[in-house]
Amino acid sequence: MSKLKKNNPVQKLASDLSVYGVVLAGGSGTRFWPKSRLKTPKQLCALGGQEQAMLSVTLDRFAPLVAPKRRMIVTHREQLTATKKIAGAKCPLVLPEPQAKNTAPAIALAALAIERLAEGTDPVMISMHADHVITDLNEFNAVVTRAVATARSGWLTLLGVVPTYPETGYGYIERGQALHLQPFDGTNSPYEVAGFREKPDLATAQRYVESGRFLWNSGLFVFPVKTLLAELEQRLPKDMKALRSCLKKSVGPGKNPFDEAKLAKVYPRLTKISIDEAVLEKSQKIAVIDADFGWQDVGSWDALAKAFPATDESGNLIYGKAVTIDTSNTIIDTDGPLVATIGLHDMVVVHHKGAILVCPKSRAQDVKKIVEALQAGKRKDLL
Amino acid sequence: MSKLKKNNPVQKLASDLSVYGVVLAGGSGTRFWPKSRLKTPKQLCALGGQEQAMLSVTLDRFAPLVAPKRRMIVTHREQLTATKKIAGAKCPLVLPEPQAKNTAPAIALAALAIERLAEGTDPVMISMHADHVITDLNEFNAVVTRAVATARSGWLTLLGVVPTYPETGYGYIERGQALHLQPFDGTNSPYEVAGFREKPDLATAQRYVESGRFLWNSGLFVFPVKTLLAELEQRLPKDMKALRSCLKKSVGPGKNPFDEAKLAKVYPRLTKISIDEAVLEKSQKIAVIDADFGWQDVGSWDALAKAFPATDESGNLIYGKAVTIDTSNTIIDTDGPLVATIGLHDMVVVHHKGAILVCPKSRAQDVKKIVEALQAGKRKDLL
Repeated sequence: MSKLKKNNPVQKLASDLSVYGVVLAGGSGTRFWPKSRLKTPKQLCALGGQEQAMLSVTLDRFAPLVAPKRRMIVTHREQLTATKKIAGAKCPLVLPEPQAKNTAPAIALAALAIERLAEGTDPVMISMHADHVITDLNEFNAVVTRAVATARSGWLTLLGVVPTYPETGYGYIERGQALHLQPFDGTNSPYEVAGFREKPDLATAQRYVESGRFLWNSGLFVFPVKTLLAELEQRLPKDMKALRSCLKKSVGPGKNPFDEAKLAKVYPRLTKISIDEAVLEKSQKIAVIDADFGWQDVGSWDALAKAFPATDESGNLIYGKAVTIDTSNTIIDTDGPLVATIGLHDMVVVHHKGAILVCPKSRAQDVKKIVEALQAGKRKDLL
Repeated sequence: MSKLKKNNPVQKLASDLSVYGVVLAGGSGTRFWPKSRLKTPKQLCALGGQEQAMLSVTLDRFAPLVAPKRRMIVTHREQLTATKKIAGAKCPLVLPEPQAKNTAPAIALAALAIERLAEGTDPVMISMHADHVITDLNEFNAVVTRAVATARSGWLTLLGVVPTYPETGYGYIERGQALHLQPFDGTNSPYEVAGFREKPDLATAQRYVESGRFLWNSGLFVFPVKTLLAELEQRLPKDMKALRSCLKKSVGPGKNPFDEAKLAKVYPRLTKISIDEAVLEKSQKIAVIDADFGWQDVGSWDALAKAFPATDESGNLIYGKAVTIDTSNTIIDTDGPLVATIGLHDMVVVHHKGAILVCPKSRAQDVKKIVEALQAGKRKDLL
């Protein structure tokens, strides 16, 4: 921070008392098994040879943007202890959900908490997922700063990642007209959203990328909280009423403003719905900002290679002790035993706490089937 | 034994005081890494889901043939302790070689020991390797009994395994004329050896198998000891003189008749040569007996599937805890961690004491390269 100029917009943001940071830290810990487990899902793991858990890296990303006392994490109650341990002083406030209900209830919970904690201001929330990778932090800070300015103009603002290849595992956002807001020049203006597209097939994804008009829906949002709450009340009136009824009458600064026992009663009846479906795809006040900061939603083992650099000249990603012979484009992650490979290409080999996974990268999506088999086999010790 | 008839030839053999059993238990522990190690090579490991080490299974094979006090093991000095532990009362006499010098010196050592221990008789030695698999023990006993009778007629007798497929990793023996010895009928007579053939290419191996005249050179021998020693003195006179000089003047029954300190001085100068090259390929008194008792020299991980039955209907051999999805013809051997596989075919996955091996079966021969890399990397703990 000391190197930043006084009029640096990021530094201004960090001292803006009405800007809040929210980290959505759900996840059931199946897709990165055996490293991720039920009680330590992906965001609580250190992936890609990092020393810190993804959640911790995510919180650090807020450092130049939002002070710790204006941050909060929404997580599943099962993961509360492990989450608090990793969050520590970086984010003292952790809101536990009694059940996973997709993103709309989680974001509503955070928005209501911010409304309560930010009394007297007109707050903006930056919402991130705890398990995304972002490599260009300077650009990230610049984009978020623009997104906050856009949100201040009343727009629910999405960070639309400029696609680098025709990914079929993400949803896409189609850009509409430029918004010509202040203080943007012509090159980095936010746009209206022309529409959302579900995960496309490969040919469609290729068309999207070539058109230059489509962006990956990253799930990174910057919302004016009052606008967001108004939209939520309109789309999910019963759910919002139920959630509001769980707010405590009085709450200390930085404390969870919800009565957890009441939440536990209310949650089973909430609609399980994404924020995209509940609000974003219906609202008229949706903007998107081009984001080109090395973003990846590391969805499964095979995606690691898109988010992290190879550790040798054969395109392998090797974390832990290994001896490789004629092995390329392979992911090796071991917490102890030495892994020796011969003649492996595009494979995944993982050892973590009593379990070994071996599969081709192309089958990494099926790791959840292993978890299902372990559930069926009552191997709770390995879940 | 109690079920055998009184005139059963195997039972007669077991009570024949001039029949000795020798187990060659060398091996550097590279081809079955990480299960086999320098101090616990293949023969000291339990492979194929067996509960006992291969050496122990090999000694048990002698049970109906040779009493423990007329058995001996020749092994490398490095492996003496582990070998004695497994041999126990099944074979109290273990002869340690100071260096690996291929099979001729090892067999010479055993032959000289037998000559000394069997004073007054005309001994026959049955020589086996400690790391072979034999599945039909009744037939094995019958064949060995015939081989002992053949050796009694003065022939250095080889057990030639009837090939079941065109293996390119074994040497072959070509049958010559039938010997018409007593007490054999026409169907199981021993033959003269017409010649030895090196490991052939596939086309040649196919020709061998189709001809019906070629047998696998199993390395299982039955020798008249006096004849063998005479041949050895003729072919390797200096080596035999040196070895004889290491015999103690007096030795208790069942004790190692060699002075180990003298052996350590003599061994470096011995010719490193196989018994095949030193004697068998040159001698005029070589016979071969058809052996069809489910023999395999389990040379590397991929060969396990030829020696042991699949443990599931997908042709996998799984020893230890595993969850497999869309996995076939794969070998999984784990001493602890659960192994989970998806989409693996014809692969090898092994976890043993701090190391994991993953490779296609077709690359199992290259496991020794891993061991070399570990040697170069000074990972003695994993050798």
